[in-house]
Amino acid sequence: MSKSPNVQGVEKANRDYVESFGEKAGLPIPPANRFAVLTCMDARLDPARFAGLAEGDAHVIRNAGGRASEDAIRSLVISYKLLGTKEFFVIHHTDCGMVLFDNATMSSLLAQSLEQAVNDGSGWKDVGAGPGSAEGAKIDWLTFTDDRQAVIDDVKTIRHHPLIPKNIPIYGYLYDVRTGGLEEIPAATEAGQAG
Amino acid sequence: MSKSPNVQGVEKANRDYVESFGEKAGLPIPPANRFAVLTCMDARLDPARFAGLAEGDAHVIRNAGGRASEDAIRSLVISYKLLGTKEFFVIHHTDCGMVLFDNATMSSLLAQSLEQAVNDGSGWKDVGAGPGSAEGAKIDWLTFTDDRQAVIDDVKTIRHHPLIPKNIPIYGYLYDVRTGGLEEIPAATEAGQAG
Repeated sequence: MSKSPNVQGVEKANRDYVESFGEKAGLPIPPANRFAVLTCMDARLDPARFAGLAEGDAHVIRNAGGRASEDAIRSLVISYKLLGTKEFFVIHHTDCGMVLFDNATMSSLLAQSLEQAVNDGSGWKDVGAGPGSAEGAKIDWLTFTDDRQAVIDDVKTIRHHPLIPKNIPIYGYLYDVRTGGLEEIPAATEAGQAG
Repeated sequence: MSKSPNVQGVEKANRDYVESFGEKAGLPIPPANRFAVLTCMDARLDPARFAGLAEGDAHVIRNAGGRASEDAIRSLVISYKLLGTKEFFVIHHTDCGMVLFDNATMSSLLAQSLEQAVNDGSGWKDVGAGPGSAEGAKIDWLTFTDDRQAVIDDVKTIRHHPLIPKNIPIYGYLYDVRTGGLEEIPAATEAGQAG
């Protein structure tokens, strides 16, 4: 098939990256700075830039909302157990899309069609042609209503998971999409028990 | 508590980022380039740099292995349904840590202790003091043995999921950690049915 503009753009940017790759060729698997970041998939977030990470420095786990899902826990356990990370950062952000819907809305929209829904400010509307799928009702979409509380909740979920060591510090942060700034949420951060 | 060197480093880098944030302050939630990337948490990978993404361009979902887990599907569905993405990139990489263990190894190591295990080339050894946890046996760690086949498998999992539209193209790529280069895996890529 012919390549889409996005595919052409990614491949062109990648050729430039390869040209300047240089000394990054020999990096080992374990992260040099021995920490992992869990954050949101949001397009406005670039964790490497906002947290100053070079290639090789830290694991970065991202999903819708930056939630402490079972899959995020799977990744964090692999991160510390096999690859030696010793600190975790949980970083949510302001203006997150996860506050704009709930499980009932999402399952209703998916039941109507598998095309994009729109929200003109008066609520979500599905404008696509069906068929949709009832499978959306089986998924917990992990939405939230308060961004700071969600950081607290996710740090707690990780802290109390039976496969996470009690002595690993877990820091909670909120990233401000209007300034690029990270604000620590002290009520979230769990220092970890002395080892 | 006093701040760790990593926390100080992240906060210092973030202050510099805020200084130069500028015009990024007004970016909207939907990704400008209307695509989502699913890739590995590996520290050596910087998707924004290797694929040429500026803040606001694309969703980035990352987990251990870049696998099409249920949580990755949750994120991809939110991405296209509510935020309008129209293409997906699944990008695994060479030298991935997910080929270095399997479910039996991981559950055995976690049963012994919740400290870092080491692998000197002759297999994983747990050198930590217990207690461990039997909970590791309940988790599918989503390891694989062939990096190219894993790209094919993950694209297929997404393609056949009942909540993913049949007409969305899903591209499979392998990133080479020694060159920074992206290689398309044509056997993986699913063009999507005409809409």
